[in-house]
Amino acid sequence: MNREIHLVKRPEGTPGHEHLAVVENPLPEPQAGEVLLKTLYVSVDPYMRGRMSDGKSYVAPFELNEPLDGGVIAEVTESQDDHFNVGDIVTGVLPWQEYSTAKAESLRKIDPSLGPVTTSLGILGMPGLTAYFGLTDIGKPKAGETLVVSGAAGAVGSTVVQIGKILGLRVVGIAGTDEKTSYVTEKLGADKAINYKTEDVRKAVKTACPDGVDLYFDNVGGSIADAVYPRLNKFARIIQCGAISSYNLTEDKGPRIQTYLIKSSALIQGFIVADYQERFKEGFQHLSKWLKEGQLTYEETITEGFDNIPDAFFGLFKGENIGKQLVKVAEPGPQ
Amino acid sequence: MNREIHLVKRPEGTPGHEHLAVVENPLPEPQAGEVLLKTLYVSVDPYMRGRMSDGKSYVAPFELNEPLDGGVIAEVTESQDDHFNVGDIVTGVLPWQEYSTAKAESLRKIDPSLGPVTTSLGILGMPGLTAYFGLTDIGKPKAGETLVVSGAAGAVGSTVVQIGKILGLRVVGIAGTDEKTSYVTEKLGADKAINYKTEDVRKAVKTACPDGVDLYFDNVGGSIADAVYPRLNKFARIIQCGAISSYNLTEDKGPRIQTYLIKSSALIQGFIVADYQERFKEGFQHLSKWLKEGQLTYEETITEGFDNIPDAFFGLFKGENIGKQLVKVAEPGPQ
Repeated sequence: MNREIHLVKRPEGTPGHEHLAVVENPLPEPQAGEVLLKTLYVSVDPYMRGRMSDGKSYVAPFELNEPLDGGVIAEVTESQDDHFNVGDIVTGVLPWQEYSTAKAESLRKIDPSLGPVTTSLGILGMPGLTAYFGLTDIGKPKAGETLVVSGAAGAVGSTVVQIGKILGLRVVGIAGTDEKTSYVTEKLGADKAINYKTEDVRKAVKTACPDGVDLYFDNVGGSIADAVYPRLNKFARIIQCGAISSYNLTEDKGPRIQTYLIKSSALIQGFIVADYQERFKEGFQHLSKWLKEGQLTYEETITEGFDNIPDAFFGLFKGENIGKQLVKVAEPGPQ
Repeated sequence: MNREIHLVKRPEGTPGHEHLAVVENPLPEPQAGEVLLKTLYVSVDPYMRGRMSDGKSYVAPFELNEPLDGGVIAEVTESQDDHFNVGDIVTGVLPWQEYSTAKAESLRKIDPSLGPVTTSLGILGMPGLTAYFGLTDIGKPKAGETLVVSGAAGAVGSTVVQIGKILGLRVVGIAGTDEKTSYVTEKLGADKAINYKTEDVRKAVKTACPDGVDLYFDNVGGSIADAVYPRLNKFARIIQCGAISSYNLTEDKGPRIQTYLIKSSALIQGFIVADYQERFKEGFQHLSKWLKEGQLTYEETITEGFDNIPDAFFGLFKGENIGKQLVKVAEPGPQ
């Protein structure tokens, strides 16, 4: 039998075990043009919270009583398609299942000689591309400008901090533990880091950004964003990547921001990485070059076991992870 | 003696007569390169509220115990500069005084044969340029898209509605009286108008914009903006021109908007018209061409008398004006 994690109830506020269920079903069989896949790693990401709700969005909501899905690394265990052989390691958007079938064209083969396969869900995957396109295309940074990054120790934020330094920016990272702020300055190279749980963020941003804020890469929204808006410089750009502090709130009010935007002729641009689909190749090229040159580093937080996928996901909202949060489901090879 | 209106106290919330005072001073005398001016019309504008406060902004705050200033139309009554003759009608940023002196290079001569001189403070002045650059440069509208305009019967909004129709958009205007909504649809040509004081704006926007909102030209912020965000289409553009509903509030909270921006990959760009200073000529050319062709119309609300400048200004926040709010201070010619 195959195990699957289904969405059985839509959360109103914080998601918990009551919204998910492990369901057993017979092992699927691949049709012509398909492969059978053994799940090795599952990516859990904050944006998935939005898909649990049934509102208007450009990413379709998860279906009730169906498996959730997301970025997965898997091994081909049976192939009905010429492009894939048993043993190939692939990545794609796949259901939260121990085994699944998928059309060959929906998968991308990973070359394990390029580095650890898990990078395809992290720095050489959606989080890395999100960091790259958000900062460079929306942010249009100029050397010497000041960049503030929230969620700076996370999968996206940690990459943004480093690309910011590569591009010659003064970088200030915001994170929620001293372990994370040390990581942000010492490993990622940020000029300053702010612990939003122990510091007065508004004062700390003012002190850390004596020349104001030109770029704000926002992964969190909420009261941290509130603390940055008053420091925006003329023609500031806010890259609105995420708003994790809002995702579990049924009511979420804060100071209105329109007046700040007018005063500083500032821009906010929301985006999802799929907006840049046609330019992914360019993104991969830059990221893998920087990674090879040692200009980029990354961390992973890897939880073990299929049954722990829900807790790893819930942990994102408690700020438990440093770098990319993954769940290891199985070892490659015959078991 | 000359009368001047001074800022004597900075308002915390709504400005009132206690914050302003009429002060008498001797008539100023023009130096070489200057002219003496008799004020004919004074422009009162919502942005002036921001200048009454002492916060960080890219428009300098008004000085305490000094005259306020803003857009003025005046007549040259004495000239110490070769470029101006007595009787010339000019416009510039000038103090709220019955008479003032100004350097010749800070003034622009108005050609009264082009139309009523008051248009230089309205549709052929800052409000017209604000509408033009905000809608065309930030909005980048495409024919067939849906544009929502708040403050649609005001000086800027009424011009935005009309330029929107010239550019082939479906236009929905929001205003605060039935007289204004009739003006917006019947005179300005909007497809629909919403009275935000008598209608449920969120439902009304949904009904009036069956295909969602591609462009939102926001003059007001607050709960009207709240009602528009949920209707944003993918890649929507919000032109953040004003937020008049916020200007007099010491605390102003509302639903956070970051999640809406992410869901629809939407942009908000704040601006002030001075950002486009180098392109003013282009703006004037388009506006005057459309005005001559009869594609643009405008209204003015003209209050009479120097002493009534404060009340005309306060009235902006009560939604009293249709079109451009001016104060007529004097007739041209010898008195």
